[in-house]
Amino acid sequence: MDIRSSFEALDKKFTAFGGLTGGGITRLLYSKEWSNAVHALKETLEKDGFETQFDSVGNLKGRIEGSKYPEETIMSGSHIDTVVEGGHLDGQFGVLAAVVAMQSLKAEYGQPLRSLEILALAEEEGSRFPYAFWGSKNFFNLADKADVDAIADGEGVAFKDAMRESGFDYRTEDNDYNYIKSFIEVHIEQGKVLENEKKSIGVVNGIVGQKRYTVNLKGEANHAGTTPMGLRQDAVVAFSKIANQLTDRAREIGDPLVITFGRVDPVPNTVNVVPGEVTFSIDCRHINQDELNQFAEEIDTCIKHVSEEEGVQYDIDLWMDEAPTLMDERLVNEIQKAAETVVGESEWKLMSSGAGHDSQIFAKYIPTSMLFVPSINGVSHNVEEETNVEDLVKGIEVLKQVLYQLAYQA
Amino acid sequence: MDIRSSFEALDKKFTAFGGLTGGGITRLLYSKEWSNAVHALKETLEKDGFETQFDSVGNLKGRIEGSKYPEETIMSGSHIDTVVEGGHLDGQFGVLAAVVAMQSLKAEYGQPLRSLEILALAEEEGSRFPYAFWGSKNFFNLADKADVDAIADGEGVAFKDAMRESGFDYRTEDNDYNYIKSFIEVHIEQGKVLENEKKSIGVVNGIVGQKRYTVNLKGEANHAGTTPMGLRQDAVVAFSKIANQLTDRAREIGDPLVITFGRVDPVPNTVNVVPGEVTFSIDCRHINQDELNQFAEEIDTCIKHVSEEEGVQYDIDLWMDEAPTLMDERLVNEIQKAAETVVGESEWKLMSSGAGHDSQIFAKYIPTSMLFVPSINGVSHNVEEETNVEDLVKGIEVLKQVLYQLAYQA
Repeated sequence: MDIRSSFEALDKKFTAFGGLTGGGITRLLYSKEWSNAVHALKETLEKDGFETQFDSVGNLKGRIEGSKYPEETIMSGSHIDTVVEGGHLDGQFGVLAAVVAMQSLKAEYGQPLRSLEILALAEEEGSRFPYAFWGSKNFFNLADKADVDAIADGEGVAFKDAMRESGFDYRTEDNDYNYIKSFIEVHIEQGKVLENEKKSIGVVNGIVGQKRYTVNLKGEANHAGTTPMGLRQDAVVAFSKIANQLTDRAREIGDPLVITFGRVDPVPNTVNVVPGEVTFSIDCRHINQDELNQFAEEIDTCIKHVSEEEGVQYDIDLWMDEAPTLMDERLVNEIQKAAETVVGESEWKLMSSGAGHDSQIFAKYIPTSMLFVPSINGVSHNVEEETNVEDLVKGIEVLKQVLYQLAYQA
Repeated sequence: MDIRSSFEALDKKFTAFGGLTGGGITRLLYSKEWSNAVHALKETLEKDGFETQFDSVGNLKGRIEGSKYPEETIMSGSHIDTVVEGGHLDGQFGVLAAVVAMQSLKAEYGQPLRSLEILALAEEEGSRFPYAFWGSKNFFNLADKADVDAIADGEGVAFKDAMRESGFDYRTEDNDYNYIKSFIEVHIEQGKVLENEKKSIGVVNGIVGQKRYTVNLKGEANHAGTTPMGLRQDAVVAFSKIANQLTDRAREIGDPLVITFGRVDPVPNTVNVVPGEVTFSIDCRHINQDELNQFAEEIDTCIKHVSEEEGVQYDIDLWMDEAPTLMDERLVNEIQKAAETVVGESEWKLMSSGAGHDSQIFAKYIPTSMLFVPSINGVSHNVEEETNVEDLVKGIEVLKQVLYQLAYQA
C-alpha cells in the first residue's frame, strides 16, 4: 500500500469531522463532531481487522494481536480533539500516522510478534471544558470525578451531561496499562526549529519543564507632566528593565532556555499617568531541571534588584512549576536509528519539546518517546497549521520502522 | 481682614457645591452643582461691591473699577469646574485666591488705580463632555458651536441642552479681551516638586510643550514553549528595550524633560504566547521647544533602531504636538519680586508647569503668568487633593502683593 495516498485519504475523511469551510477543524470533547470522529475511527479500524475497544470516558484503542508475545504491546497514537479553530494535524496526525503505519506493516509483514495498538485519546487540549489531558489522565487512572463534576463549557453545558450524552461516563474501575511495553507519539513540532534547520524529523528526548509566574509591581501613579523623572516610582519602567535584563540573560545562556513576558497589564493604562502598578506574566522553560532552577533564581534576583533600584514593591507568584519529562532512552535510541535508516543523518535532529503533550503523562508510567515533523512557519492552534505532505509521510515511515523493530523483531 | 479665615470661610462655602461626603467635589459643567456655585459666586461678589457679568457661556467676571486708569484691567482667576471626584483646590483655589486677595486689597487700600477683575471660567477639565477649555476658548472667541453641537455627556444629555438648561447659550458675538493688561492664575502644583524642595511658592515661567505618540510594534505571535529565543520577533521585548533606553536617556538629559510609557497593550496578552504585537503610548514634555524636538528625534531613532534589532515592524503616530507656552517675562518678574517680599528667597522656586492650564490659552493673547502652591504628595484629580493651609495663605498673599504692584502703583 502507498503510505502517502492512504494517509491523504484518511486525513481528508477525518478532517471532515468538525472541518471548517476555511480549513482547519473545531472538534471539542463530547461534541457531535467529536462523537462522529471517534465512531468513524472505530469503524475504520474494525474494517481493517483491528480489535477495538472504548474505555468508559471515550479513549479508543485498536489492537492487532501479536503471534509470539501477545501480552507485550507496542502502542502509538495521540489525541483526537482539537482547539477551537485548530488545524488538521495537532493530535489527529498522531492518530492517523499510527493507523497508516500499522496498516502498512500488516500489509507488508502480516501478523506481528508482539501486539500493536493504536490509541486515540479523547481529549488533550482543555478547549471546551477547563480541564486538560482528560484522555491520558483517565488512561492512567489519574483523573478524578471530582475534578470535572462541577465544571461546564462556555454555554453552560455540564461536563458530565455532555459526556453522558455522548454515550460515555465516569471511570468506575481502574484501567490496566501494564501490558503496554512502549508508547510512541507522533506529533507536529508546533515550532520553527525543524523548518529553520531544514530537518524533516525531530527525535524528542524530553518535554521541557516550565515555571509560570504572575509578578505584580507597585509604585506610585502620578501626573505624567508634573512629576519629574527623579520623583517617580514607575512600574512600567521597572517592568521594562526586568524584561530587558532577563531577555538578554536568556539569550546569553542560549537554547533550549526560553523566557516569555506574554501578558503585561499596567494600571491605570492611560497615556498621561505615570503607571503606578503593573501585573505581568513570566513563562520560562528548559529541558534540564537544574538549569531551569538556576535561571529561576536569576529571575527572583533580577526582580528584587530592579524593584529596589526603581523604588517599587514586588510580589512574585510562581503558580506553575512543572518538572521536565525525560523520554525513555532505549526508545529515543530506536527512533534515532529508524530516522537514520529512513531519512538519513542530515535530516533528523535530537530535540526537546517546548510544548506539553500526552506523552508527558505516559512517560511517568510506561516507556515513552515522541517524534516530530516540521510545522510550516511554526504555526499551530490555528486553521493555517500545515506540514508538507512529504514530511508527514517521512514521519509515518519513521514510525513504521520503529514499530517494525519493536513488534516484528524477536 | 484676615486672609486665612476669609479664605477658609469661602472654601467651605464653595466646596459644598458638589461636595462629596468623603471630601472632594464633583462639579461638572452645566450641572446643578455647577450652576449653584456660579450663582453663589456672583452673589458673593456683588455683596462685596464687585460689578458682575456672565458672558453667554457662563464665564463669570467680577470687577472693581480703577480710579485713574479704569480702562487698564488686571485680572486673576481660574476655572470653577472639577473632574469627577476631584479635590477642592484644582481650579476653585485660583478663583477664591483672587476673591480674597482683591477683597483684602480693597479693605486695606480702597479703590485701585487700575481696574481689578476676578474671572471664574466655566470649564477647563473636559470631564463631563469630550471638550476641554470651553471657558477660556470662549473667552478668546476660539470655541466653535460646531465643536460641541453634536456632543453629549455619558448619560446622553446633549451639550447644548445642558447649556441652555443652565440659562446659557452659544456665543453670538465676540468677547472683548483687549482691555485686560495682565492675567495671573493661581493654581496648585499637582506635582511633588515644591513639596520635595520644601518651597511654598512656584513662580511659573512657562507651561511645557508636549508630544504624545501611539506606537505600534508588529512582530510574530508564537508558541512560548516551542519557539527558541533566536527565532522570535517579540513585540514586548522590543517595547521593553525602547522604554528602557529612552528612560535612561531622559534621566541622563535631566529635568525638566519627562517621558512616560503610560499605556501598554500587548496582543494577545496571554502567558504562553510570544506577544506578536504591542501598542504603547509615549507622553514626552519639555519647556524648551528645541530640546523637546531634539528628544523627539531620539525617540524616532530609538524605535527604528530597536525595531530593526528585534525584527519587528513599527508605526509611530504623533497625535499631539503642543508647543511650550512661555509666560510673560515682566509678569514672571513681578511674581518673583512679590514672592521674595512675602515668603523670602528660600521659599520660592522658578519652575515650569508640566500640566496644562487655562493660562496656556491666555498667554497667546494677553500678558499672563501663574503661581503655584505645593500639593501634598503631588496628589490631584482625587478627593485626597490637599495643600497645607499655610501654603494656601502664602499663595494668596503673593497674589495680593502682585495685584497691589500692578493695580495700585502708578
